[in-house]
Amino acid sequence: MPLALPEPPQRAPILLGFSGGLDSTVLLHMLAADPRSRDAGLRAVHVHHGLHAQADDWAAHCERACAALGVPLQVVRVTVERASGLGREGAARAARHAAFAAALAEGEILTLAHHRDDQAETLLLRALRGSGADGLAAMRPWRRHGRGWLWRPLLELPQAALRTHATAQGLHWIEDPSNADTGFDRNFLRHAVLPRLRERWPHADAGLAHSAALCAQASDLLDAEDARALDAVRCDPHTLDLRALVALPAPRRARVLRRWIAELALPPLPGNGFTRIEHELLPAARDAHGRFDWDGARVQRWRGLLHADAIRPSLPIDWSERWDGSATLLLPTGDTLRLTGAPRFDAPLRTHARRGGERIALPGRSHSHALKHVLQDAAMPPWRRERLPLLSDEDGQLLAAGDRIVSARLAAWLVAHDARLEWSALA
Amino acid sequence: MPLALPEPPQRAPILLGFSGGLDSTVLLHMLAADPRSRDAGLRAVHVHHGLHAQADDWAAHCERACAALGVPLQVVRVTVERASGLGREGAARAARHAAFAAALAEGEILTLAHHRDDQAETLLLRALRGSGADGLAAMRPWRRHGRGWLWRPLLELPQAALRTHATAQGLHWIEDPSNADTGFDRNFLRHAVLPRLRERWPHADAGLAHSAALCAQASDLLDAEDARALDAVRCDPHTLDLRALVALPAPRRARVLRRWIAELALPPLPGNGFTRIEHELLPAARDAHGRFDWDGARVQRWRGLLHADAIRPSLPIDWSERWDGSATLLLPTGDTLRLTGAPRFDAPLRTHARRGGERIALPGRSHSHALKHVLQDAAMPPWRRERLPLLSDEDGQLLAAGDRIVSARLAAWLVAHDARLEWSALA
Repeated sequence: MPLALPEPPQRAPILLGFSGGLDSTVLLHMLAADPRSRDAGLRAVHVHHGLHAQADDWAAHCERACAALGVPLQVVRVTVERASGLGREGAARAARHAAFAAALAEGEILTLAHHRDDQAETLLLRALRGSGADGLAAMRPWRRHGRGWLWRPLLELPQAALRTHATAQGLHWIEDPSNADTGFDRNFLRHAVLPRLRERWPHADAGLAHSAALCAQASDLLDAEDARALDAVRCDPHTLDLRALVALPAPRRARVLRRWIAELALPPLPGNGFTRIEHELLPAARDAHGRFDWDGARVQRWRGLLHADAIRPSLPIDWSERWDGSATLLLPTGDTLRLTGAPRFDAPLRTHARRGGERIALPGRSHSHALKHVLQDAAMPPWRRERLPLLSDEDGQLLAAGDRIVSARLAAWLVAHDARLEWSALA
Repeated sequence: MPLALPEPPQRAPILLGFSGGLDSTVLLHMLAADPRSRDAGLRAVHVHHGLHAQADDWAAHCERACAALGVPLQVVRVTVERASGLGREGAARAARHAAFAAALAEGEILTLAHHRDDQAETLLLRALRGSGADGLAAMRPWRRHGRGWLWRPLLELPQAALRTHATAQGLHWIEDPSNADTGFDRNFLRHAVLPRLRERWPHADAGLAHSAALCAQASDLLDAEDARALDAVRCDPHTLDLRALVALPAPRRARVLRRWIAELALPPLPGNGFTRIEHELLPAARDAHGRFDWDGARVQRWRGLLHADAIRPSLPIDWSERWDGSATLLLPTGDTLRLTGAPRFDAPLRTHARRGGERIALPGRSHSHALKHVLQDAAMPPWRRERLPLLSDEDGQLLAAGDRIVSARLAAWLVAHDARLEWSALA
C-alpha cells in the first residue's frame, strides 16, 4: 500500500526542503505525484552546507531528481559558523533554517520530511536538556514560520515505512555518512539509545511521539491562558501592574513574563532572569527601584509598576538644540518632540537635558517650583524621567519638561493656538 | 558534608516506607537524627512481599536497624497478585502502595526515599508509554495521599550522593538482587539505558528530573484552569451544558470531561472514550439521545445537556408497593420518595412503575392528559424518566409522577397540609 499524503492544512504553494536523503526523497515523490500539491505550486530548496567533500555531488543529484519530476529546485550555499557555540550539528541546523526562511516566499508552505523517529529523538533530546511541556511538544506538524508556514506531513509515520516505500518505488537517495556519526547528539540517540529502547518497548517511538503530541496540546492551552493573563495585568505594552502580576501563581507569572518579553521583541530572559525578578524586584518590601538588565534589555520596578524595554541612552547632559516647532525633532534618545496644531513657536526655543536646580512657573501658581518636586508630584516613572527633554526660551526660562509639565506661559500660548506638544517614545 | 534533610512542608507524624535498601536506610538515619522529625513522631513500615527466599532475613534486618535507632517498625506481609496483568514489578508496587495506604494514620506523612535517579527513570518510563504533561510530571515531592500526605525529601538528590553518605556514615543496608534483574522495565532503564545516556550527557538525570518538575508546574496550571472551566459548564454535579462545553478548545474539553468523571468517582474513561463522546455525542446534528457506556458508567446526551452517572437499574415494570408517606420509601432504583410537612397521607397510596397508557388530571385543567405528553412537555431528561416512580390511589387513579408532576387532587391535599413530595436520586 503506497503511503498517503495528508491534506495540507492550508491551500498555498509548497517549498520542499530537499536534502536528497531517504526521507525528503520519499516526500518529493509523494508531493510530485499529488495533483493538489502540484496545482498549488511545488518547488524545492536544497541547502549546500559545504561541510562534506561530496556536497557538490549531492547538489547535482538533487538537481537531477527534481528535474526528472519537473519540480523547480533552488540550491542555496550556506556557511556553517563552526565557532557559534552551537556545535557543528546545531550550527548546520541554524544555517539550514536561516536558508529556508530566506527562501520562503510570502504565504508559502515550507515542507519538511521529519518523521516519527525524528520526533521521538527530539522529545528525548529535549527531556535530557530539562525542557518543560513547551519544549517536550517537540516538532509541530503545522505552524507559522517566517513569512509563511511550516508543514511536516510525515510526522506520524515511522521511518521504516518510508524506507519500505522508497525501496518498493525504486527511488534513489543519498546516504549522508554524517548520519552515522555518533559524535552528534541526535545520532547518538539514534544509534546507541533508541535501538535498545525498542528492544524492550517495541512501541517506544509511538509512545514518545504521543507524549510530544500531548505536550503540544498542553502547551497550546497554557499559551492561550498566558495571553489572557498577560492582557489582564498589562497597563501598556511596556508596563505591567505589579499587584495583579503578584496575584498570579508563580509558574503562571514566569510564563506571563516570558511572553511579555517575547511580545516586546526583547532578547529572551537568561536562565536566572525569572528568579532574579521574582526575588529582587517583586517583593513589596524590597527597593521599589529594583532593576534587572540582560543583553541590552532592562526590567525595572517603580512603585506599583514593572517596566521592560531595551536599554536606551539617556539625554546627554550637555546636549542642547534649537527647535522652532516646525518639524518633528529627533532627540539623541530616539524619542521625538512634535508641535501639532500650530506651524511653529513665535520664536525658536532651546531643547536640552536636565542639569538640576531648574524651576518652573506652573499655571495657576503664584511662585515657581523646583522641577525636582514637580516631577515627584507628577509621578513620572524613571524610564521616562531619564530621557526627559526640557524646553526653555532663549533667556533660559524653563517652558516645559516633556509634554505633561508645561509652564503657565507656554500653556497659555498652546491654548491660544489650539496647539499641543507631544513627546513620544521610540516605537 | 552530610546530606541535609529539607523541612517537611507540614508538621505531622512521619511514617517512613523502609525496605532496608540503601536509599531508605539513608533516609531512616537522616530522619532519626533530625529532632523536628522525632518530635513530630517517627515510625517506619516494612512491606514483606514474600517474593524472595531472603525476605524474612530482610524483615529481621529492618527490625534491628529501627530498634537500634529507637524507631518503631511495623512489618506488613502482602501477597503479590502475579496474575494482575500489571507484571510482577507493577503488582509488587501496587501491593506495597496498598499496604502503605492501610498503614498510614489520619494526617500522617508517608515518607519515601525516591531520589533524582528514580525520578529520571520515571519520566523516561512515562514518555515511553506516551504520557502527556500530567504523567511526565512523574513523582511529586509532596502531595495528598490517602488519609495523609506523601513526602519524598530526597527527590532532588542523585543516588550517588546517598551512596557516598551511607559509606561515610558506615551504614549497613540490604542489596536486593531483584534490583539487578533487567527483566523489570525500570531496571532495564537503570542498567541498560541511563548509563549510556550519562556517558554522553553527564547531566542527564538532572535534565530529566527538571523536565518532570516543569511538567508538574504545567500540570498544576492546567488543573486549575480545568477546575474553573468545569465550574463554568456544569449545571449540577451530574450534568453539563452542552453549548458551553462545545465552546471549549477540544484539548481543554477532554481534560474537563476527565475531571468531571473523576469528581463523580466514576471509573476513568477508556482510551477511546473521549473520541467516542467527541464524535458521537457532541455534534449537534447527531442523535440527541446518544450515549456511551463503560465499566458500569454512562455518559448520555439529551437536548442541550450531557449527563454522567453510574448505570442504575430502571424501576421493574411489575414492581408496586403500598406507601402511607410516614417513612422515606427506598425504591428498587436506589432513589427515595419522601413526604415532608405532613405525618402521612389520609389513606395509603400505591407506588409503581410506568406501564404506558397512564393519564393524569393536572391542576387547572378540565380534562385528564396522557402522561406521555405531560412528560414530554415537562422536558424530563431520560436519566430521570427511566427511574420515574408513579403514585396512584387504591382505585388506580394516578396522583403523581415523580415529585414535579402532581394531579389536581394530590396538589390540593399537599397545599392544604403545607406538605411536599420529594423524589431524590441516590447520592
